[in-house]
Order: sequence, then C-alpha cells, then structure tokens
Amino acid sequence: MQKVSAEKLKSYVHLKSTGNTISPGKVKGRKPRWAVRASEMSKKTFNPIRAIVDSMKVEPNPKKAMISLSLGDPTVFGNLPTNDEVTQAVKDVLDSGQYNGYAPSVGYQSCREAVAAYYNCPEAPLKAQDVILTSGCSQAIELALAVLANPGQNILVPRPGFSLYKTLALSLGIEVKLYNLLPEKAWEIDLEHLESLVDEKTACLIVNNPSNPCGSVFSKSHLQEILAVASRQCVPILADEIYGDMVFADCKYEPIATLSTNVPVLSCGGLAKRWLVPGWRMGWILIHDRRDIFGNEIRDGLQRLSQRILGPCTIVQGALERILHRTPPEFYHNTLSILKSNADLCYAALSAIPGLQPVRPAGAMYLMVEIEMEHFPEFENDVEFTERLISEQSVFCLPATCFEYPNFFRVVTTVPEEMILEACSRIQEFCEMHYQGAEGAQDLECDK
Amino acid sequence: MQKVSAEKLKSYVHLKSTGNTISPGKVKGRKPRWAVRASEMSKKTFNPIRAIVDSMKVEPNPKKAMISLSLGDPTVFGNLPTNDEVTQAVKDVLDSGQYNGYAPSVGYQSCREAVAAYYNCPEAPLKAQDVILTSGCSQAIELALAVLANPGQNILVPRPGFSLYKTLALSLGIEVKLYNLLPEKAWEIDLEHLESLVDEKTACLIVNNPSNPCGSVFSKSHLQEILAVASRQCVPILADEIYGDMVFADCKYEPIATLSTNVPVLSCGGLAKRWLVPGWRMGWILIHDRRDIFGNEIRDGLQRLSQRILGPCTIVQGALERILHRTPPEFYHNTLSILKSNADLCYAALSAIPGLQPVRPAGAMYLMVEIEMEHFPEFENDVEFTERLISEQSVFCLPATCFEYPNFFRVVTTVPEEMILEACSRIQEFCEMHYQGAEGAQDLECDK
Repeated sequence: MQKVSAEKLKSYVHLKSTGNTISPGKVKGRKPRWAVRASEMSKKTFNPIRAIVDSMKVEPNPKKAMISLSLGDPTVFGNLPTNDEVTQAVKDVLDSGQYNGYAPSVGYQSCREAVAAYYNCPEAPLKAQDVILTSGCSQAIELALAVLANPGQNILVPRPGFSLYKTLALSLGIEVKLYNLLPEKAWEIDLEHLESLVDEKTACLIVNNPSNPCGSVFSKSHLQEILAVASRQCVPILADEIYGDMVFADCKYEPIATLSTNVPVLSCGGLAKRWLVPGWRMGWILIHDRRDIFGNEIRDGLQRLSQRILGPCTIVQGALERILHRTPPEFYHNTLSILKSNADLCYAALSAIPGLQPVRPAGAMYLMVEIEMEHFPEFENDVEFTERLISEQSVFCLPATCFEYPNFFRVVTTVPEEMILEACSRIQEFCEMHYQGAEGAQDLECDK
Repeated sequence: MQKVSAEKLKSYVHLKSTGNTISPGKVKGRKPRWAVRASEMSKKTFNPIRAIVDSMKVEPNPKKAMISLSLGDPTVFGNLPTNDEVTQAVKDVLDSGQYNGYAPSVGYQSCREAVAAYYNCPEAPLKAQDVILTSGCSQAIELALAVLANPGQNILVPRPGFSLYKTLALSLGIEVKLYNLLPEKAWEIDLEHLESLVDEKTACLIVNNPSNPCGSVFSKSHLQEILAVASRQCVPILADEIYGDMVFADCKYEPIATLSTNVPVLSCGGLAKRWLVPGWRMGWILIHDRRDIFGNEIRDGLQRLSQRILGPCTIVQGALERILHRTPPEFYHNTLSILKSNADLCYAALSAIPGLQPVRPAGAMYLMVEIEMEHFPEFENDVEFTERLISEQSVFCLPATCFEYPNFFRVVTTVPEEMILEACSRIQEFCEMHYQGAEGAQDLECDK
C-alpha cells in the first residue's frame, strides 16, 4: 500500500538519533519546576454547543417535567429502536469469535467491499479501495479535513451548520469561512456568496445534505449548481451525507458524487442516524475521484492518518455487510414515516404561534424555527429565549447560535408524538406570555 | 464541565463572520485549476513498521507454510480466545438496547466509575472523573500526547520502543528524543542517558511497562529511580501500561503511579491485550495528579480533545463493568501461563542457536533477539536477515529496526506451541546455514 523510498526510510529511522554523550548536568542552568500546560491544540478544540449549553442557566420549572428537544440522538426516548437484524448481526459476530483482532486501520477488506457494494451506482462507481472505515462519521470528517487542508488554508462551511466542522478546523489551524444558507429558499445555498468566498487558500467546500440543523434536502438542480461552483473554482467537496437517504417521501436524496464526473468528493457517512446506532461509532469515507484529481496522494494520506487510532470497533465492522444488505426496508420506511409525521405535527403547531416562523423540513431529524425577536423585546437573543423557555416551561430547544445562526432555535423531531405536542403547547403558552404585538404584526403568523 | 466566559464565547461565535459584500469575481486574478495536495500532517504521519514491512521483499519459500511471529495481535491463531463472560457481557448490552445512543465524549459516567473502581488503590486513588474512555489505547496515547505537548516541544521515548509514539509525535510536530534501554540489564532504562536528554522543551516522558517490544517488566526499585528523574526534572509521565498485569508469576507489575506522590501521570491502558480483544478499540486514560500539577487545565484539555471523535463504541462501554469485574481469574492465569510457557520454550530454543542472543522476557507477549551480525556477514542488517528468513524458511519476525533498534528482531509469544517450536527449528536451520564462526565465537552461545 504505502511505499516509501529506502532513503526516506533511512532518514526517518536515524532521524534525531540522539547524541551519546551522557552528562546529566549539561543542560542545567534550567531550574526545574512543575509547569504543565495544556497544549495550544487542546485549547483551540472548542465545541460551541457544549460551551453555549454549559453557560446557559438551565434550571427547569420544577412543576413541569423536562422535555428535551435538543439532542440529535434518535435513541434517547426509546421510540426509535434499531432493527433486530442489526443487533443480531453483531451478536453473531461476537459468537463467531472471528472479529476480535486488529483490523487493517482502514477497515477489513470484506467490510469495505460491503460498503462499496451498498453505495455503488453507475453514476458514481465504488470499489473496496474507495472506502475508508472510521470511528464514526466524526472521525470521517476529521480525517477528510486533516488530509485536505493545511494550517493557514480555509474551508467553506454552511451557516447555519453543524458545529463540528469548525471545532475540527480550528483545532487543526484551518480557517473557517461561513457561506449563507437561505431560509426563504428552503435553506438552499446562497451560491453567489459561496463563490465570493473562494480564494487560493480554499482547501475544500463542505456540503451537508440532508442538513443538520435545517432538515433541508437539496434538489438535484441545486446540487448541480453547487457542483458548478466547485468545478469552476476547482475546489474539492467534503460531503457530509450522514443523513443520506433520510428524506421524506415527496422528495429525493441525491448523493452529490452521483451528479458530477469531475469534482472530487469525499463523502462522509455512517450507521449513526439511518440505522439508529450513533454510539456504535461506525463511519466511513467514500472516495469519489473519477478524474484522478485526488490521486494516490489523498488516498495514501487518508490511509496514513487512519493509522493513528486504527479504525472502528471490529465487532461492528464484522456485522456491516449484514446490516447494510439485510436490514428490512420496512425499518427505514417506518423510521421516516415517524420523522415525517413528527415534523408535520411540529411544523403545524409552531406555525400557529405568534412570533415564531418554522421552516418546513424535508428530511433528517430537525426543524429550524425563527424567533421574531422584535416581538420578544424581553429577550436579547435566541440563547436568552431558549434559556427562559427552560426555566418557565421545562422545554429545551437548542439556540441556533450553536450553529452560527442567531435568532433561531432547532427542534429535534425524533421525540415521541405526545411529547412533541406537549412541548409545542408549552412553547405556545410561553410565546403568548411574552409576545409583544405591533400594528400589523399578526400578519406574520401565516406560513411561509 | 467546560465553562467559557461570555466574552470568549462571543468572540468565537462572531469570529471570522465573513463580509457580506457579494461579488463573485472579486478574488479572481486567480486562475482556478485542480491542484489537490495531501496535507503536511498526513505526510508527517508515518508508520515505520508499515514502511519497513512493505518495503521488504517478502516472498516466502513455497515449500514451507508461512509462520508469522510478527504481529502483536494475540487473536490471530485462535489459541487465545477471549473469555465467554466478556462476549456475553456485550451480547447482553446489545439485547438491552440501552447503549446505542451517544455517550458523553469521555465515556458514560457509570463506565468511567467501573474503570476507576478497578484500578483504584490506596497508593493511587481514582474516581470516575479521573478516567477518560478512548477508542483504543492508541487514541489514549494520542490524546495524552496532544494535550501535553505543543509543536516544537519534545518527548522522551524508549529505544527500542513501540513505533506509534513517534508516529503520533511527528504528525503533531513534536520532536522525539530516544532514551536507551539496556539489554544487558533486562532492558532497564539508561537513567543517565534519559536524564541527559531532558531540556526546557521536554513535555513528557513515555514509560512503557511491561514493554513492547522487549517483554521486560521494571522492578519497583527501577520504577522509583525513573520517578526520581521525572520528579527532579519536573517532567510528567505518559505511562503506556496496556500490558499492565501481564507479567509472569515470578515477577510483580507495579503501576508507576502507585509509586509516586508527586509526579503527575497519564496512564494509558485498555482491553486489547489482557482481555484479548484488540479490535474492539476500548482504551482509557487514568489521570493521576495528587499534587494538582495537571490541574483542571489538562483535564479540560483532554475533555475538549475527546469531543473530536466522541469516544469508544458504546456497546463495549456498556459491557465494561462486567468485563472488568466478572471475568474469572482463571482466564488471566491461563493466558499468562501460555505466554510464559511459550516464552520459555522460545528462549531456550533460540539460546541454543549460534549467532543469536535472546533476552529473557518477564511479561507481555514479546521477546527480543540479538543477531550477532559479525557472524552473518552475508546480511547487512536485521532487515536483510529477517527478509532472507522469510524467503528461505517462511518464518516472519519483525526486524527491530521497526523499533529503532537495529540488529535485533522481535518474536511474538502468542503463537501456538507447535508453531513456535517449528519456527525455532527453522530459525536454527537458517542460522546454521549462514553462520560464519570465528575463533572463540562459539563461547557466545551461552545464555546471558
């Protein structure tokens, strides 16, 4: 796989072979004292969601049971269990005793084949060597960023967008440029703004579709427009497609790599959301590079980086083929129908509330809601609004400042129906209590 | 956990909020063309074992079945299965359906408690907050290095030693200084050499005990000497104790943190070796800091860094308490008695071979063997020696150049007895074929 010249090897092995003159006192002049400091990198690794949530004054109203609409974890309420086939596949792997040893750092060959076969299609063919298995989609994104960008380069990141992109980029010394999504166009990308941000230091464009936090799904034609920008500007795409295929029936999901013959794409995905097992940490990178623009350099780089922590848990790897190819289709349909029904309920309820403007989602597990701040003069911003929603109504929604998008909040639609309804009714009570109408303001209540 | 000031938060959220002037042509002057290069970091991530092994001409002798004594994976031959209790614990977790969601990035509180309880002792007390769960011991070492050292600082690493320390350090821009182990003193550290390497840029001292590749186990008094150096020089210790407790009956394993009241220690461990499930990627960092030298800074740094990829697989986490506290003692004893018996066999057989000088191990799963190169003038070095051993005898031992220690090779002692004996007899045939005696050289055959 990874060949190095004898010379490079030699220079490596003998590198810094330290001198043999032994004189323990020689470096002194130094007066040793304990002064252990955390590294710059650890300080630059900053998770805004944690920081914002931890800094919120979150004492719920003791008279009302807490309802959390904040966590992007579909498993917390028990209403969306994974499929028995998925669990049984891992149990059988355990019984076999054949998957306890080290796998190659990019994953077992047979498991990479299973993923390739699952996502392979004529428009974007995939083989085992195009698949890198990772410890969750988070590590997939980390490796993709780490291989594509050097410190000092920049990446283009959606606003609103998932906070991990920025967390990882800043920790690696990579600059983040935020491009706007347009709520009035169902969160499509502001393409002009996007293109205006590209410069010679742009290492990649992150496209997250379906979107967290928006629940939006890009149309084929919009994806083609995005690809046109990437192609014109020669910027590779890091596609966060962890919510791939999680779109409602009236809408179609298109993997971005299937729509381009030239733009190289690293597509990041995993079992977390669609198979409802985010804790299992099984992710992957699909390498789409039909014009050989990434070439061996990016492949070798990913392989080398994967050796740092040696890939995902082998007992989940061993179950992958069966999970991907034998989970019954009804399972996926059932999940989506619950998500769709919850999204509809939630959208309808929140649309009726004065001062709130939900944006209808088309997939994933989220819904963004605009707060018309001018009607809530008591609150300075979305953080204060959601804070008070907790203390008065024990309902927790994530302020969209967490996604670089003030004056919105995000609602998770994996919550059981009766809790969503109860939460929406409490949100209504809260808004009615704090809403300050203005002449004509009632007109804003209608749907977008 | 991780509090940030409102100001820092604000500066973060508004950081680099990009200008709104939209003019797609403005940055042009750039002529876009495809030029995607792998990052410097990916190029600096270099695994010498892979490089050396991949560059070896490894065509085995077709007349002899290959015997590999090279892989530090105890599961490959099926003679060392994990315990049923371990497997059943994970199966029950799967059945419960309670461990499929996201865990906190440092691990479930209850699982951190289970690890703390297991390793807690009066000399080195541990609580849940002193435990960080990681994706294997590799990630434990990665996080520990990443939090302790900045680019430009250096770390002290054993020679011979496990190659991952250097791979990770160089990829992070951290300099590696190699301190010598002394084969003639059962691989004790050359303390004078070690101390001579410390300078004001030394971020930590890596102590690997029991040792890979040596199979050596440090005595209590030697560990105290090492701690005295660390204490005098005020250098924190990164203890790679993944082979902890894997020592033969005549010898005692002492966790280094139990012998010091002042030197702060990050002890890295995991399930891989002792529980014989390296593929499961379950590791941990134990934070020992009784003088509060690491303080919150290092703890917070580890927590922040853990958020990059969100910890180890939850179904293994969920099984941890039972794995640690209910695996029957006979399982550990049985593993060790096999390892000890194999080590004895191997040591005895190799000691009898002219031109080889094995060093007797006291634990772990390895044995180092010196090649008296002057008696093998055909071969330039250990890489060539082991290469020819493959092509003639189909026996694969790892050249110790992989561990920065030329003219030795490493033998793995997890291989079934009959294969070890067969391998040793082929090594004997090989050495007899190539040995060039000199006057008096036969004297060197005796044990050290």
